[in-house]
Amino acid sequence: MPARTAHLFDDATRVTAGDSRWQGRTSPDYWAFVGPFGGVTAATILRALIEHPLVSGDPLALTVNYCAPIAEGGFDLDVRLVKANRSSQHWCVELSQGDNDVATLATAVFAARRPSWSHQPAQAPEATPFAQLRRFPNLAMSWANQYDFRFVEGLPDFQAGLQGEPSSAYTKLWIGDRTPRQIDPLSLMAMSDAFFGRAFHARRELMPFGTVSLTTYFHTDAADLFAEDITHVLAIADAKIFNKSYGDQHGELWSPAGRLLATTTQIAYFKA
Amino acid sequence: MPARTAHLFDDATRVTAGDSRWQGRTSPDYWAFVGPFGGVTAATILRALIEHPLVSGDPLALTVNYCAPIAEGGFDLDVRLVKANRSSQHWCVELSQGDNDVATLATAVFAARRPSWSHQPAQAPEATPFAQLRRFPNLAMSWANQYDFRFVEGLPDFQAGLQGEPSSAYTKLWIGDRTPRQIDPLSLMAMSDAFFGRAFHARRELMPFGTVSLTTYFHTDAADLFAEDITHVLAIADAKIFNKSYGDQHGELWSPAGRLLATTTQIAYFKA
Repeated sequence: MPARTAHLFDDATRVTAGDSRWQGRTSPDYWAFVGPFGGVTAATILRALIEHPLVSGDPLALTVNYCAPIAEGGFDLDVRLVKANRSSQHWCVELSQGDNDVATLATAVFAARRPSWSHQPAQAPEATPFAQLRRFPNLAMSWANQYDFRFVEGLPDFQAGLQGEPSSAYTKLWIGDRTPRQIDPLSLMAMSDAFFGRAFHARRELMPFGTVSLTTYFHTDAADLFAEDITHVLAIADAKIFNKSYGDQHGELWSPAGRLLATTTQIAYFKA
Repeated sequence: MPARTAHLFDDATRVTAGDSRWQGRTSPDYWAFVGPFGGVTAATILRALIEHPLVSGDPLALTVNYCAPIAEGGFDLDVRLVKANRSSQHWCVELSQGDNDVATLATAVFAARRPSWSHQPAQAPEATPFAQLRRFPNLAMSWANQYDFRFVEGLPDFQAGLQGEPSSAYTKLWIGDRTPRQIDPLSLMAMSDAFFGRAFHARRELMPFGTVSLTTYFHTDAADLFAEDITHVLAIADAKIFNKSYGDQHGELWSPAGRLLATTTQIAYFKA
């Protein structure tokens, strides 16, 4: 095991450079029901791209398809620059373990963010400040305890169970790393998968659940994000439909100053 | 050229089976500014998967990354089943022409949609019926004229130009094929890219514009969709942010009876 870095998140998403083949390792600190927290897997893939010698520009879009569970231990990242243009790059990453099939398949777009007309029609959500809210208590899953979740709306009660009408799937909460860490594209990527399952909220109970495909768009370049100099984001998430074992989620990650940093959507399996 | 099929859309999205390499061809009937309409490219990729002998289940998620312009003529589709589970499949498709780099990179998830608890928190939009609205007039781009667009809200005026505050990017419209064709997963895929650029609406003018990455989730299985037996959908789209040359779009495709059929999101380049 390599020496621990300054932050657990950076330790969990650490990658070792190869030519087209990189290596990573699951972290017990970010463990979910049956494998690593999907957000950290996504962030690890993004880290391999950001640290790649051929990378140019900032992350614009990342789609991660979770094909099969990842076992505890090391994994390989097959990183391929599919197409490079003057101002954008298209990447494909396959995560696998040993001789097994691909466990995670991702595509990413990087882009040089040139100055342009700018307009933010989305309304920044209002919220009680982070410091005035109480931290959500620890859960059995280790990954959740690496975060500081402070609910503004939609505080979950997973013990109540579904009685009559489903609850709202809408959530508004602050998300920061439990040990504060400056928000960067890696943490935005992980946090875009850090919402609890919408089906848990709607049914007020836990159930077998897994993200199948996750897409996140980044709306600032790395320099602007760095200039925000923040350690938590205001996040909202909601669902539109649950049908035949799959449900959607869409979410937004905002800076405390009211800047939309990222939008995200996912489709997830549930058993209910 | 092969003989025309019953509908231009089926002609435009026709594929010829190979082993892992399939063939398609651009259609002058679905041409956009500098290449084929991205929605038809996405639908062609989806068609190759749906017609693939190894396919199982119904389309659940498709992400299409537009890496480079596609020239008029034939193209190859490199179709690869990355991982198959008991109830889902993960695919990767690369579109290329001749010896050139990949022009379009796509990932797809297919799934067996098993019965489950069902809940649709999203509110079906209200709209004047399709038959009572006027068809949007023809445009210079051939693809747009293959559709019957009937605007309920956000009728575009691309001549006005940006004066003072940007216009709303919100649009509500009916979309059908100009020659009616029963809505299937292929047409949902194409229609999810058939909104005009959000930046066009916000700035009330046309500008250099191109979809970079498009993701669509399907919320019914093919049998339920077929049972709807419809030839148009009620579609809404909006944008949250335009910043440093890229803007987002998120949209919903509804059946006339108020069933959410698909949700879609994309990030697009614009020059303004």
